[in-house]
Amino acid sequence: MADTRAPAQGVPSPCSMHDLAHRARLAARTLAQSSSSERDKALWAAASALRESAAAILQANARDLAASTANDAFRDRLTLTPERVEAMARGLEDIADLPDPVGQVLEEWSRPNGLRIRKVATAVGVIGVIYESRPNVGADAAGLCIKSGNAVLLRGGSESLHSARAIHAAMQTGLRNAGLPEDSVLIAPDADRKHVADMLTAAGLVDLIIPRGGRSLVERVQREARVPVLAHAEGLCHTYVHSAADHAMARRIVLNAKMRRVGICGATETLLIDAAVASVLLPQIVADLAEQGCTFKADAAARQIMPDLPAGTEKDFATEWLDAVLNVAVVDGVDEALDHIARFGSSHTEAIVTADEAVAARFMNGVSSAVVMWNASTQFCDGGEFGFGAEIGIATGRFHARGPVGVEQLTTFRYEVIGSGQVRP
Amino acid sequence: MADTRAPAQGVPSPCSMHDLAHRARLAARTLAQSSSSERDKALWAAASALRESAAAILQANARDLAASTANDAFRDRLTLTPERVEAMARGLEDIADLPDPVGQVLEEWSRPNGLRIRKVATAVGVIGVIYESRPNVGADAAGLCIKSGNAVLLRGGSESLHSARAIHAAMQTGLRNAGLPEDSVLIAPDADRKHVADMLTAAGLVDLIIPRGGRSLVERVQREARVPVLAHAEGLCHTYVHSAADHAMARRIVLNAKMRRVGICGATETLLIDAAVASVLLPQIVADLAEQGCTFKADAAARQIMPDLPAGTEKDFATEWLDAVLNVAVVDGVDEALDHIARFGSSHTEAIVTADEAVAARFMNGVSSAVVMWNASTQFCDGGEFGFGAEIGIATGRFHARGPVGVEQLTTFRYEVIGSGQVRP
Repeated sequence: MADTRAPAQGVPSPCSMHDLAHRARLAARTLAQSSSSERDKALWAAASALRESAAAILQANARDLAASTANDAFRDRLTLTPERVEAMARGLEDIADLPDPVGQVLEEWSRPNGLRIRKVATAVGVIGVIYESRPNVGADAAGLCIKSGNAVLLRGGSESLHSARAIHAAMQTGLRNAGLPEDSVLIAPDADRKHVADMLTAAGLVDLIIPRGGRSLVERVQREARVPVLAHAEGLCHTYVHSAADHAMARRIVLNAKMRRVGICGATETLLIDAAVASVLLPQIVADLAEQGCTFKADAAARQIMPDLPAGTEKDFATEWLDAVLNVAVVDGVDEALDHIARFGSSHTEAIVTADEAVAARFMNGVSSAVVMWNASTQFCDGGEFGFGAEIGIATGRFHARGPVGVEQLTTFRYEVIGSGQVRP
Repeated sequence: MADTRAPAQGVPSPCSMHDLAHRARLAARTLAQSSSSERDKALWAAASALRESAAAILQANARDLAASTANDAFRDRLTLTPERVEAMARGLEDIADLPDPVGQVLEEWSRPNGLRIRKVATAVGVIGVIYESRPNVGADAAGLCIKSGNAVLLRGGSESLHSARAIHAAMQTGLRNAGLPEDSVLIAPDADRKHVADMLTAAGLVDLIIPRGGRSLVERVQREARVPVLAHAEGLCHTYVHSAADHAMARRIVLNAKMRRVGICGATETLLIDAAVASVLLPQIVADLAEQGCTFKADAAARQIMPDLPAGTEKDFATEWLDAVLNVAVVDGVDEALDHIARFGSSHTEAIVTADEAVAARFMNGVSSAVVMWNASTQFCDGGEFGFGAEIGIATGRFHARGPVGVEQLTTFRYEVIGSGQVRP
């Protein structure tokens, strides 16, 4: 049931985000009735369409690059290559291979009156994805939404508009070839920033917003959205080395948590270490990290042990460095560690290294974070590492999805109550 | 660890909702570490305190009633009696008897690298409850929040201020006697409407808002809140009688779904009936309901069968009557029924009566409602009927909790990742 109102080649007709959201809402009703195999077929067909239209996609990308005046790092994120197009296509096929999250019976029980109650996973409806200039995000996000039975409204960065449209055209070809509504994936008609505001306030039409980008984008979305948002503004992650930690394990974990990749949200930004072990262990940890080029911001107690460490300020402990910089604070036990995290943390991921199970339990119960690690690196906060397959992001809110957001987290549920004619007394 | 900053007898010191929210946030951190038995002890102690201070509560209530100029229905909701105080106390004891929702392992799995991942139920944090002038709501809401390990910020109706304070004092006595922070239950210092706006915008301090009251209150909260809201603005519930319905069952269910209690949100407001059976079945259903005093708003097709039925307008089909009035529309099959519900429904509860399992499945997959009944009355949408024990309300949003909201629905979760020193490659 290809939707004839969807313009050929996915170049959107000039219409408002509200019009598009209405069309997406209609498509979502059809998707909610679609089968797992239809949705997987659409993903496979979209992957083929991406490969077949690789030349057109690269041409569109060249137009974006020619018009862009951005810096090199930005241009690199904006740039598509044959390899990156192939990676997008393979990504859609990997998503198709995931188990179907829709229709799963999450809970089931019976009542004394014979009613059977089932909690069943269902699609959310219409998901708005706002992203910056990495064009592949459009394909990944659309793939995850289709897999989970959701229609998606895409609003990419203005500098990647031509690339995004070419990718969108391929996604719609896949949907058309699988007999699903092309309106299941729609894209903002132009670079007008007004479309973002429209999407954020389209309550009743858009059910969920997922911003993919820097902190300022995410914070704007969280501030202005009138619909639920899944996102994280920052990942100010802590690793706490408790006095009962195995020293070799603590050194290995802190080194990995900070230095494996310094630019990801799961990277540790602050080391908290118990006074009881700091004099022995802190110099070793610092040496391990310094050897890999890490620099430090240390509190007074840490500098009493290592006077050469640069002094850290309040502001430093509140800073997500996303760089080879580590805040260091010496604490006196788990409660002081929890106080520090309550004050400076971002509810993303914290870790404790200890051999003491009671202390670990107290730490895990004491943080409000979405993910808490015991004797493991904070860098494991990742959909792939959790076994979710592809992820659309990390959520630090308290509701619905927390931590990695995969296809299962793009579903909600309904209660199905099955009777045999029961009426309520 | 009674919080000495909490004023004696729970008469709040003159301070802003933000100050109160800060204090609640601190109390929530202690509650998150509290044991099930400590929280149950607080509920039992609060029940005793309510009984012991019954005289003071009734005195305070008399002051509210003396000052009130409201109509009789409102005064009845505002009025407390010895029986109503006892019912509040028993309600707290019933909540204490529920299983502890906090700390439950919701999911658990292992990864090839040996990491164990546990999804564990946790308290939400600070819950804001905004209610109108039924004073017992304060005790019920506080009880449900304490049971689920949450601190609660109460803002009752201005006309019940003295009653609410007296009840609040008893709740704090219970917390004090159980050694939990009195700030776990806090109440707006006075009737200033500004406190509502403060609560709605206290992002970062209040994690969740639950409005208990009429549609205008709920819609204001949903419109203005900057934090998640669990509520339903209305319950415009539909019962669809399919052509393959057992006639006796259909008559029994429609009669109960509309007339058992016409004023509750799970009452059916609109009957959708297949043309194939309407000519035989509709007159019988109408006769059943008319006998109990129900009146009707019928569409053209229904009036062709029963010309004496009053004509219903678009506006009627969009109206939640909460009264002995039933909208009636004849449809041509399940898809027309789904179109009608998509247009007029409120995502609360819908029911289908049919012996055809495939049609039932199509109906259940086709509605976006939180609860869908097959061969049962829509009036079963209730926490007690679901087996949740006490409920704080019904949620029609798509996220976190949908349908009845009990203590389990007042929890969120965290991922606990348990390693043996794993670092990420």
